[in-house]
Amino acid sequence: MTKLTSIAIFIAGIFASAHAISAEPIEVIKAVKVTEPEKVELGKMLFFEPRLSKSGYISCNSCHNLATGGVDALPTSVGHNWQQGPINSPTVLNANYMLAQFWDGRASDLQAQAAGPIENPKEMGYSHALATQTIASMPAYRAHFAKVYGDENVTIDRLTDAISTFEKTLVTPNSPFDQYLLGKQDAISVDAKAGYQLFKSKGCVSCHNGPAVGGTMYMKMGLIKPFHTNNPAEGRIAVTGKEADKFVFKVPTLRNIELTYPYFHDGSVWTLEEAVNTMADIQLGQKLSDKENLEMVAFLVSLTGDQPQITLPILPPSNKNTPRPVPFSHDPMSSKPVSSELLK
Amino acid sequence: MTKLTSIAIFIAGIFASAHAISAEPIEVIKAVKVTEPEKVELGKMLFFEPRLSKSGYISCNSCHNLATGGVDALPTSVGHNWQQGPINSPTVLNANYMLAQFWDGRASDLQAQAAGPIENPKEMGYSHALATQTIASMPAYRAHFAKVYGDENVTIDRLTDAISTFEKTLVTPNSPFDQYLLGKQDAISVDAKAGYQLFKSKGCVSCHNGPAVGGTMYMKMGLIKPFHTNNPAEGRIAVTGKEADKFVFKVPTLRNIELTYPYFHDGSVWTLEEAVNTMADIQLGQKLSDKENLEMVAFLVSLTGDQPQITLPILPPSNKNTPRPVPFSHDPMSSKPVSSELLK
Repeated sequence: MTKLTSIAIFIAGIFASAHAISAEPIEVIKAVKVTEPEKVELGKMLFFEPRLSKSGYISCNSCHNLATGGVDALPTSVGHNWQQGPINSPTVLNANYMLAQFWDGRASDLQAQAAGPIENPKEMGYSHALATQTIASMPAYRAHFAKVYGDENVTIDRLTDAISTFEKTLVTPNSPFDQYLLGKQDAISVDAKAGYQLFKSKGCVSCHNGPAVGGTMYMKMGLIKPFHTNNPAEGRIAVTGKEADKFVFKVPTLRNIELTYPYFHDGSVWTLEEAVNTMADIQLGQKLSDKENLEMVAFLVSLTGDQPQITLPILPPSNKNTPRPVPFSHDPMSSKPVSSELLK
Repeated sequence: MTKLTSIAIFIAGIFASAHAISAEPIEVIKAVKVTEPEKVELGKMLFFEPRLSKSGYISCNSCHNLATGGVDALPTSVGHNWQQGPINSPTVLNANYMLAQFWDGRASDLQAQAAGPIENPKEMGYSHALATQTIASMPAYRAHFAKVYGDENVTIDRLTDAISTFEKTLVTPNSPFDQYLLGKQDAISVDAKAGYQLFKSKGCVSCHNGPAVGGTMYMKMGLIKPFHTNNPAEGRIAVTGKEADKFVFKVPTLRNIELTYPYFHDGSVWTLEEAVNTMADIQLGQKLSDKENLEMVAFLVSLTGDQPQITLPILPPSNKNTPRPVPFSHDPMSSKPVSSELLK
């Protein structure tokens, strides 16, 4: 190596580390390297598995639709028997970057989260016992569990472990903003750059930071002015019992925020324009000009990353040992009474 | 070319045409060559598009789930507001081989069929006007329509043309039985071979024939003995008004029948074993032995072909011009009244 080359490498090194240590509050999000492909595949099957619900109709993907940003794009979700969910479904994309799961953080991680909706009477309306019995009834699933876990036992822990392992792969790298952070100056517009400066200078980054641009802390919704909503959710107080945690929610990720409308825990706001102004007002006590609003929205839209490319799994057929779905509690049209009992 | 080679080719030709003209009542089903990939891609997006429903929750794939044999595997489907569908959802796989669509054949083709559920109040519960307005509100969709149809106009005819063009690609070739028909003797079991002989000798093929093993004709359900059901559907009479068409339904395809339980237009029977015995009894006046039943089922299971490999489409986001979904007619929890009006 010539002396000149060494110097060039040394100088390049300085710039590289200067970039690496730059104090940007938002970090580049990177694609996840899949180390357990068979478990991920099993988890994907279970994520799309409607037979984890009482009705045989609702899967994880029903409310966390990977065709639409990992959400159902509804204010609150449709659950078993068309019951209305209590709160807006958060996106499953980049969810592993959240410090905890659900708006109130009541599940410590994705595996704990995945167990919830299956047995929530307002969501999938099933039980862990019937869900595992359903999966265990199918030879193809048992073989898959054996391959991943060493034996055929289907337990709720393994089932949710597989689902959460799949979910951890649902990361959205390569957004225009990430390209910009990595040095590609023209990856985002002039408006988006101005929006990012505003996002920092106005104080948005104090909550929305890290690789997911959120999800690193809990914060009161309505810090400066109260948030008006008919949604009865009170946030963290439901977990901690502390009065100080009333209306304190997990700060949501802003990654792919263009796709994850409607906004806020009550899903009451449909446009980024309105969401940005509301946040500035009630969290920061500021009024944005129309230009500032436009720039902020341009920045937020630059956070849309590459969406996971998902090949729809082919699910194994039920058989006579599979508990039957019960979509309707009484089925007057069927020639046989419908029950969740095993077929004799 | 030597004389010997010519003779060899001539003899090979005899065998080839002997095979080609063999009077097998079931024909090999072949993968469809995609000639309009952009239209197929657009149709796939629309097939997975929940915003074609009033609720924003139900897509074509909800009842014709490509993860589960192109059906929802329920006796009758879940529709808008959890209304119970009137009849078992037929599979979308190989549906283009049906002489008409729906159990009563009231739609002449897949395009006509696709228009139905969108505006059926018990299914997607929307209107063609709002469905097309929804799709036309999104620049990405408009650009896709322009690429496929020459201009940006989103009409219900174009929309259903695209969906049906996608559906025509949903063919399941390469089943063990097809491999057997093509000469691979060990592609199916001894039981399946015996089952196929029974299928022909007992008379099942008189209705279940052609490439889809069905779908070529209408037939009375309960030809020899009445079919007992609480389902009020009366079949073709609803289309023709003729008393002779009472309880006459389209003969369903038996391709992938292992996956498309529960069976019959009322979805009342969950196992192939029972379905086979019922058909033999009420359509043919025959009682099968346990061995015959087992063989027939082995044959039917050999009709499961390669399932379409579907990459989940990434759908474009709604915007302020997109009509909002109305999953719940009254939403007490949202801070704003929910309506399908455009956002002002």
